[in-house]
Amino acid sequence: MDFLPSQIIRKKRFAGEHTREELNFLIQGFTHDQIPDYQMAAWLMAVCLRGMSERETVWLTQEMRDSGVVLDLSALGMTVDKHSTGGLGDKTSLILAPLVAAAGIPVPMMAGRGLGHTGGTLDKLESISGFNVQMDLHHFQSQLEKIGCAINGQTKEMCPADRKLYALRDVTGTIDSLPLICGSIMSKKLAEGMSALLLDVKFGSGAFMKNLAEAELLAQTLCSIGTQSGKKTRALITRMDEPLGRFIGNALEVRECLDIMEGKSAPVEGKGYSDIIQLTLELAAHMIFLGGKSTDLKSARSLAVELLNNGSALKKFSEMCIAQGANLECGLPKSRYQEEVRAQNEGYLCFTNLEKMGLAGIHLGAGRKFQSDQLDYSAGIEVLREQGERVQRGDVLFHLFHNNHSRAQAAHAELSGSFIIQMQPPSRSPLIAKVIT
Amino acid sequence: MDFLPSQIIRKKRFAGEHTREELNFLIQGFTHDQIPDYQMAAWLMAVCLRGMSERETVWLTQEMRDSGVVLDLSALGMTVDKHSTGGLGDKTSLILAPLVAAAGIPVPMMAGRGLGHTGGTLDKLESISGFNVQMDLHHFQSQLEKIGCAINGQTKEMCPADRKLYALRDVTGTIDSLPLICGSIMSKKLAEGMSALLLDVKFGSGAFMKNLAEAELLAQTLCSIGTQSGKKTRALITRMDEPLGRFIGNALEVRECLDIMEGKSAPVEGKGYSDIIQLTLELAAHMIFLGGKSTDLKSARSLAVELLNNGSALKKFSEMCIAQGANLECGLPKSRYQEEVRAQNEGYLCFTNLEKMGLAGIHLGAGRKFQSDQLDYSAGIEVLREQGERVQRGDVLFHLFHNNHSRAQAAHAELSGSFIIQMQPPSRSPLIAKVIT
Repeated sequence: MDFLPSQIIRKKRFAGEHTREELNFLIQGFTHDQIPDYQMAAWLMAVCLRGMSERETVWLTQEMRDSGVVLDLSALGMTVDKHSTGGLGDKTSLILAPLVAAAGIPVPMMAGRGLGHTGGTLDKLESISGFNVQMDLHHFQSQLEKIGCAINGQTKEMCPADRKLYALRDVTGTIDSLPLICGSIMSKKLAEGMSALLLDVKFGSGAFMKNLAEAELLAQTLCSIGTQSGKKTRALITRMDEPLGRFIGNALEVRECLDIMEGKSAPVEGKGYSDIIQLTLELAAHMIFLGGKSTDLKSARSLAVELLNNGSALKKFSEMCIAQGANLECGLPKSRYQEEVRAQNEGYLCFTNLEKMGLAGIHLGAGRKFQSDQLDYSAGIEVLREQGERVQRGDVLFHLFHNNHSRAQAAHAELSGSFIIQMQPPSRSPLIAKVIT
Repeated sequence: MDFLPSQIIRKKRFAGEHTREELNFLIQGFTHDQIPDYQMAAWLMAVCLRGMSERETVWLTQEMRDSGVVLDLSALGMTVDKHSTGGLGDKTSLILAPLVAAAGIPVPMMAGRGLGHTGGTLDKLESISGFNVQMDLHHFQSQLEKIGCAINGQTKEMCPADRKLYALRDVTGTIDSLPLICGSIMSKKLAEGMSALLLDVKFGSGAFMKNLAEAELLAQTLCSIGTQSGKKTRALITRMDEPLGRFIGNALEVRECLDIMEGKSAPVEGKGYSDIIQLTLELAAHMIFLGGKSTDLKSARSLAVELLNNGSALKKFSEMCIAQGANLECGLPKSRYQEEVRAQNEGYLCFTNLEKMGLAGIHLGAGRKFQSDQLDYSAGIEVLREQGERVQRGDVLFHLFHNNHSRAQAAHAELSGSFIIQMQPPSRSPLIAKVIT
């Protein structure tokens, strides 16, 4: 069918609901350079200000999915993946993929780079010398068949509409729109071809969604899109107002995951690994349940604990590393310097600005200021105390791992703005707030 | 000052008010290709949906004005121009420029081409063999000094921001926005450098503004911009639900103006020239008053009538034609064929869709379907009956002037949808509804 782009733009401008045909015309036309950036930009702004119905959002997502290759993994039986909306110190994917694969459910995980103040799974894995996250689809699928898990970047032939749209949204102030966010997240996931998807939707001061209600709306929309596109989908809504686990930074986070999979406890007192372990096991349980390897969540939880504790997850992780070109024996990069950040007064520790904490990591080289920046894999932050803990003046709160003193200075300054020490202990909501099915 | 375009876009997206510096950055950056179309398109859509304060609209207009050459006509003393928002059969400019110049007030008129269903002053003048509407600014100014009036197209060095913005708005569904419309109209007028401006803001079924309230809002905004930019500005709000005068079409309208300036009455009974004469004289009176040649409107009206009746306007019109390369002695182009459109039943004539009447003219060749279309200057429509007139079955309502029978057929079909003949006479509002100062 043939439409006039300006007519479609005007329909959204005046709050109309698009037909599937209109969205097909728009998305496929844009992908194939038949609709210019300026028309798409006007439409994106109209979508930001007028919104989209659930039906439109589902169609938009499916059109974006269909702009490129969609994997067919049906030969593998039930497959499951997890997606998180992004949290500081969140390294659960690195354990989840091998753990769930060890339970017999293939995990075709296509992950991303660091975005904003939060790190990216691909960057973390690349801190392991030789780890290849740019396999082609043929290798990705054959590794899934052999080992049961693979963590890779999305290839160029998948979801080109999303890449083009995201780049345009980035420069036109149209990133933060519910239907556009949902379309971007879910089109990429749907193109992976897994049969079930678990979403970890974060809320809180360190998340994109600042409160539970917003996170719920996002989770429900994502679940609707997944379900209406033939995928078993559910979402956990989880707290993000303190860093997850003890480390922030690529090699440091891999080291933390290896510790956890090796059954080692955290190096000293204070903030340990308990929150990241709890979240990982809960996500694993839901993935195992979605993958049909347990008839209820309780037994799924027991299986997850068992596979983590008996070394199965670690073994699978090693297999995945080797299959993707890396060797854990070579060790992880270590920073030359370690610097302490101490409490200036006495009271209860309260993380108030996780974006600043993430930025401190970026200053150190753990993340990128510009897309072309080289990462320092060894750099990062160790968080020694947890939210609400009572601290004394002079107590060490953080370690900065770095290779450059001026970078460390910038990071230190940024980090100082990320917390306060106050008279009253801050309130703390539960780590897992809600399950949306 | 340096801004990030996406931050400016986001400010408007979230209904913020721009500073003058932001609008300067945006408009000058866009004019000089430093801000790409896609960012401007997103911003335009945000403006459509969030609006602009009066202050922002004034700044936007002035930035657009300052994107190119602004004429300095101060050496000529008081100068005055008129702008109409566009009406079917509106040929007042052709009489006003020479009439007001004959009163001793220079009229630097920069006019446009046909737009949508309404004709353009430049097209009408070009039906006079040799008439040049593309003088450079030097010739424009020296003609003003010598004769006191000139009607010309805007030159490329004036208001480049408006040309670029208009082209972008046209393809992104963002034409109809009050601040953008006002910016476009007034930036071009302000760049002309006249000291006073009279606006003819049309309302009714054949106008862009469908009711009086909308027209008033537009008129008030236009007047604010003019006044705050140092120009004496006022607006007449006038009726546009029936064609103005008796003819539609380029040479036909020039012929009508010559008839009026020569003191001839309309060819036959029925709709005459009275409405177009009334509007022209009222506009002329306000222009003469604005130009300071009368201390009150009443004496301005008398002067206007005198200058029309004593041949001064006609004489000035001839001088202008000669100065711009044309010779009225050569005569105007005439169509080969003339066709009648008759009433199918008995009752009161009611014009219901002036856009269709305008389209009928376009079918005949009096206007353009595409920008590249060649006009047929001799083609057009004669409107023999006026709004509310009682007609009998078989009465001739219109003459179609044309050179092509298949075009005439298309025009006839279109014209049939532009009126009905009904049992009750339609209500008729006064030609001049309001004056805004």
